[in-house]
Amino acid sequence: MKPLNIGMIGYGFMGRAHSNGYRKVNNFFDLAYRPVLKAACARDAAKVKAFADKWGYESVESDWRKLIDRKDIDAIDICTPNNTHAEIATAAAAAGKMILCEKPLSMNGPEGKKMVEAVQKAKVPNMVWYNYRRVPAVTFAKQLIDEGKLGKIFHYRAKFLQDWTINPELPQGGTGLWRLDVAAAGSGVTGDLLAHCIDTAIWLNGDVKSVSAMTETFVKERPHTLTGKKEKVGIDDACAFLARFDNGSLATFESTRYARGHKALYTFEINGEHASIFWDLHDLHRLQYFDHRDDGPTRGWRSIHVTDGEHPYMGHWWVPGLQIGYEHSFVHQVADFLKGVETGQPAMPDFRDALRTQYVCDAVLSSAQGGKWVNVEKA
Amino acid sequence: MKPLNIGMIGYGFMGRAHSNGYRKVNNFFDLAYRPVLKAACARDAAKVKAFADKWGYESVESDWRKLIDRKDIDAIDICTPNNTHAEIATAAAAAGKMILCEKPLSMNGPEGKKMVEAVQKAKVPNMVWYNYRRVPAVTFAKQLIDEGKLGKIFHYRAKFLQDWTINPELPQGGTGLWRLDVAAAGSGVTGDLLAHCIDTAIWLNGDVKSVSAMTETFVKERPHTLTGKKEKVGIDDACAFLARFDNGSLATFESTRYARGHKALYTFEINGEHASIFWDLHDLHRLQYFDHRDDGPTRGWRSIHVTDGEHPYMGHWWVPGLQIGYEHSFVHQVADFLKGVETGQPAMPDFRDALRTQYVCDAVLSSAQGGKWVNVEKA
Amino acid sequence: MKPLNIGMIGYGFMGRAHSNGYRKVNNFFDLAYRPVLKAACARDAAKVKAFADKWGYESVESDWRKLIDRKDIDAIDICTPNNTHAEIATAAAAAGKMILCEKPLSMNGPEGKKMVEAVQKAKVPNMVWYNYRRVPAVTFAKQLIDEGKLGKIFHYRAKFLQDWTINPELPQGGTGLWRLDVAAAGSGVTGDLLAHCIDTAIWLNGDVKSVSAMTETFVKERPHTLTGKKEKVGIDDACAFLARFDNGSLATFESTRYARGHKALYTFEINGEHASIFWDLHDLHRLQYFDHRDDGPTRGWRSIHVTDGEHPYMGHWWVPGLQIGYEHSFVHQVADFLKGVETGQPAMPDFRDALRTQYVCDAVLSSAQGGKWVNVEKA
Amino acid sequence: MKPLNIGMIGYGFMGRAHSNGYRKVNNFFDLAYRPVLKAACARDAAKVKAFADKWGYESVESDWRKLIDRKDIDAIDICTPNNTHAEIATAAAAAGKMILCEKPLSMNGPEGKKMVEAVQKAKVPNMVWYNYRRVPAVTFAKQLIDEGKLGKIFHYRAKFLQDWTINPELPQGGTGLWRLDVAAAGSGVTGDLLAHCIDTAIWLNGDVKSVSAMTETFVKERPHTLTGKKEKVGIDDACAFLARFDNGSLATFESTRYARGHKALYTFEINGEHASIFWDLHDLHRLQYFDHRDDGPTRGWRSIHVTDGEHPYMGHWWVPGLQIGYEHSFVHQVADFLKGVETGQPAMPDFRDALRTQYVCDAVLSSAQGGKWVNVEKA
Repeated sequence: MKPLNIGMIGYGFMGRAHSNGYRKVNNFFDLAYRPVLKAACARDAAKVKAFADKWGYESVESDWRKLIDRKDIDAIDICTPNNTHAEIATAAAAAGKMILCEKPLSMNGPEGKKMVEAVQKAKVPNMVWYNYRRVPAVTFAKQLIDEGKLGKIFHYRAKFLQDWTINPELPQGGTGLWRLDVAAAGSGVTGDLLAHCIDTAIWLNGDVKSVSAMTETFVKERPHTLTGKKEKVGIDDACAFLARFDNGSLATFESTRYARGHKALYTFEINGEHASIFWDLHDLHRLQYFDHRDDGPTRGWRSIHVTDGEHPYMGHWWVPGLQIGYEHSFVHQVADFLKGVETGQPAMPDFRDALRTQYVCDAVLSSAQGGKWVNVEKA
Repeated sequence: MKPLNIGMIGYGFMGRAHSNGYRKVNNFFDLAYRPVLKAACARDAAKVKAFADKWGYESVESDWRKLIDRKDIDAIDICTPNNTHAEIATAAAAAGKMILCEKPLSMNGPEGKKMVEAVQKAKVPNMVWYNYRRVPAVTFAKQLIDEGKLGKIFHYRAKFLQDWTINPELPQGGTGLWRLDVAAAGSGVTGDLLAHCIDTAIWLNGDVKSVSAMTETFVKERPHTLTGKKEKVGIDDACAFLARFDNGSLATFESTRYARGHKALYTFEINGEHASIFWDLHDLHRLQYFDHRDDGPTRGWRSIHVTDGEHPYMGHWWVPGLQIGYEHSFVHQVADFLKGVETGQPAMPDFRDALRTQYVCDAVLSSAQGGKWVNVEKA
Repeated sequence: MKPLNIGMIGYGFMGRAHSNGYRKVNNFFDLAYRPVLKAACARDAAKVKAFADKWGYESVESDWRKLIDRKDIDAIDICTPNNTHAEIATAAAAAGKMILCEKPLSMNGPEGKKMVEAVQKAKVPNMVWYNYRRVPAVTFAKQLIDEGKLGKIFHYRAKFLQDWTINPELPQGGTGLWRLDVAAAGSGVTGDLLAHCIDTAIWLNGDVKSVSAMTETFVKERPHTLTGKKEKVGIDDACAFLARFDNGSLATFESTRYARGHKALYTFEINGEHASIFWDLHDLHRLQYFDHRDDGPTRGWRSIHVTDGEHPYMGHWWVPGLQIGYEHSFVHQVADFLKGVETGQPAMPDFRDALRTQYVCDAVLSSAQGGKWVNVEKA
Repeated sequence: MKPLNIGMIGYGFMGRAHSNGYRKVNNFFDLAYRPVLKAACARDAAKVKAFADKWGYESVESDWRKLIDRKDIDAIDICTPNNTHAEIATAAAAAGKMILCEKPLSMNGPEGKKMVEAVQKAKVPNMVWYNYRRVPAVTFAKQLIDEGKLGKIFHYRAKFLQDWTINPELPQGGTGLWRLDVAAAGSGVTGDLLAHCIDTAIWLNGDVKSVSAMTETFVKERPHTLTGKKEKVGIDDACAFLARFDNGSLATFESTRYARGHKALYTFEINGEHASIFWDLHDLHRLQYFDHRDDGPTRGWRSIHVTDGEHPYMGHWWVPGLQIGYEHSFVHQVADFLKGVETGQPAMPDFRDALRTQYVCDAVLSSAQGGKWVNVEKA
């Protein structure tokens, strides 16, 4: 196995999830490459040192430019807030590094377009961490669709519901809560949660043609994490939109952080001529499947426990019936990325593919602001 | 018990459901009035005779005007296609009859407004058969909301999914399939299915302020039931809309007859500050309830089996754990109507209340046609 | 339609359930016979009068012997406590009446055997109200088994869990709570609940060969309903047993009234070589079905919503997706009984068929008392 | 962090699961010790080398006695077939090594008793891998019971259902299928699956007093994996038993490998005076909880998504709503073992604790053979 040296920028939730992916991948997958945790980078020297110790990074950096300059780094993993992705990625591409960038790709479509141009010019492998594509049940859904099991698609519906910001005393901004700060995040639930829904939807159902959206900010002011001072909230707390896909199907999308009882309920359902599928992040190891071609009276929604060796990725894990979890989607994405480096067939979504999601997000936010239908730009 | 003589117009699905309600109500409820199945009326003499025999109607009529003229009829039950409601109801009101009208009230808002004026002028008891309000789990949801268990409402989402018109060979029109004929039905899923969702929503969450909608007709031509000739399809096969309620909550509504695997999946979910509820017509005897005030680690969605004596209406039926079904919602509505006649406190929704739903439907169809947000007229 | 005059003895829970069945059956089924509610009979004259008025019985009796003597009665329906079944049924048979007897047939096997002999000698139609056979999902399970969908059966497991007697202050005896009084009921959960499980099991899986059981009475003394005096509890509060069927399959059965959270949770599961089925009284309109012959990766438990026209009995009711409830099992049983009277092919279970359950109950109670395996007598 | 050098014997399913636990534990838990994968040992030199490379073991051995003799090994992890546990563990104890032994502890109670004596004499930390105690939802169940949330316990029911041996052509014996070989496994489902159920039950509900069991071997002969020759099957394919616990509660236990549709369906339910709980390995991240003290009409089974920071172990992983899987139970067990080494408060179950399960298994097999109730020996 050839080493592939990782330079990680950021040490938060995603820094941990990706690191775990790098550490585990070769125990479960036979690959030509082996990720090496070469360096972790963040401005807070003490915190990044603690992170590096915990995860076995060989060195630390406090300036990402220095990390990019290091000759012993093959790939840069960007786990920083959204407003930093473009600058880091562009510099990393210029330095000839492979790039693995957290989602969403960018603050908006035009910025993302420049990032796409940068990696294309540099000809470096690049990928965006839309990890839910690689939950086995979701990958399996893709297989069923590609096999024609569903036939013509009539409907797509997705939602991503959370409830962690209902308390108006919850502050915004700073390291931990930058997702509530529009300057760092670009948007609220649209870029954070709906981007996941949109990425999966495009993968499974093709491009979105047009949208009509509404957004709402239920809590108008929040104290800032650092200053404690009340400031206007700039993000969208909730966003819902209607959509039409290029393939003629209709869709509804919704996301909020004000849905009591839902921690991270990402669900999607697709209704086709012959069959329908439903998936739910709260039970991510299951796929619900209804096939109209089953014998009439015994038709019913099948609850498929996606844990057999013949299910996507599952032959690498345990035995039938024993479920894996959230973190494994990242292991799979690392495995596919490494396989892509080996074969030259890049793992998706790369930057270009992820730009499509960015354009939908732009259209959604624009529609919500203008109160009218907006066509989505093609990537 | 005083007799209350019913004159039923129509003998289809709803004619049966209402008749069953009239026949059963006094076995299970203590009431001052007893419905008497006095006459059934329809143009097809043979069919209405068979219907009358089956259900024990004492007589038949083939002209609804004659039925209305009969002195021995107290109440007219309108179970005919939507395009006949207004004429019959207006005449019945003029004749001083009580009126129980199938939903939707009318072909559109303005027509409905005239019907409201007619019954108000005649001062006759009137009601529209939005039966789902009286599924015990739904009534229980209303109680929980009225008790303040949910607090401020952030989100409402409803859908009504079916799959029975996917086959393009299914004909339209005629007695059996008038719901696919725009001339008889006025609209497709909007008036047939979304009207139910809207009625419940208004009851539980107040008035809708504005909507943005889209509709689609997937099968553009269908053979006519009687002629076999292909004709343009005028109804909406699917309709989805975004909405804002007067109380500030956001909503998504969707209905279709192209969702494989769903026979009559009417669901709604409401997310409040303190609690959320979810209901599903396919398991109508259950209410899902999440209460954030439960002790943290043991919080979870409660699957409430709404079959206890202390649940709405359930003390009239069997013992805890033994479920009732769809038909019982009509029995409850009859019971409440009779109680309203007795007490003078009319059972809801009356025509005026049902007109609110009509105005939302109008706004939805108008929005879908114009591709823009539309404000809902106040009833 | 020919009238079939019913004489009902008892007016409690079952009296209501059966009466509802008689009243509804001809509205939904085309039959040669029409049940007429001729007379209701019970010792308490006021109560039976109120019952008769509520349900439309034409007359009342306070002595069941008089009822049996009446020429205008065709069929006797026995809804009295278990310890009265034998005497009434034997007399009714001698008088040439048809008999519809509540379950369990008798206090024990030998008593039941005499009842079988009585009806066979009198050649009168006879039936026992094991109503769960006619829940559509259960009847559908029977069809699937008979079609060979399951193949060789390996396992059967059933349970019937309730929680209504946990409170030690709940009294025993009297009209309302005779099920807690061993003199009236014969046994506790064994005859009341397990009898249902056993009847279904025998129907679906054939005869039980041998059993090993345990019983427990958690609350040893209870106040008597009438006197308030604490008396020893004679019934079994809980009973579980292992069983071997004649077909070689293994089984577990369990029943209790001390299972918090379960109101009337009767469930059974059958595992066959090719397929498995699961049913649950709390969602009685669904059947869970797993078919190993489905294509590997898409195998899953199918949640079948047993509400289509092609499902057993369902063509008589509403439209797909709209569920029926507990009470309908009685309507179906009446329909089948009347059909049996018409055709001469008696509806099952008749007394002889129900005797098989009685013998299993006897073996269970004997095993629990003796602490050893007991073979079941053949009916 | 101090290193703790692991010597792993075996490289199969459990060898992988434990190795993964050792590798991950320090990334997620703050501990005084760090497991070091020092040596892997197995007779097949090529296979153990491949395993060691995959998992990062520093060295390999082909003779477990040599491994035990090595000074650089602190702990021996026994992942070999059941019939080798006693010899290895006794030798390892004599050599002063800590021991982590796969379940079941031994072939039977008397053998297990000697193992307990060996580790007690040697005073070495010892543990048995009954991993399901450390699924967060199961640990949470234990907390609820210990807090008195359930009150007096009336019922315990557990089952472990699989379907992978229905095919009679499936061979027995050899490396991969030693679980079907009675000489290697000691018993069939009793030691393999029911042992898990019993361990959890004893932990949650105390000691089992007596049992009545039945076993069955559905396929009497199978080809041997190595020779292809048909040989008599010595294991139990299915086993069910009734039990009484010391605390007065009644129980049913069942396990089989002939339950179509179930891959690894380990479930348990406990009914207490005040509350009930249910857990299911197929959705291991959920706990079902019913609390009778909830307000009457809103009582219902709560589906608790055990993924919050305040749930057992979950603060070490991701964020609320994101589930972990099967493998994490081993990580938790490693963490607790290391904490036990640090604090001197050993993690349970140690050998002595696991011996209780062994005695129940002995009683179960003896009861099944003799056809009578058997009292369980006290450990």
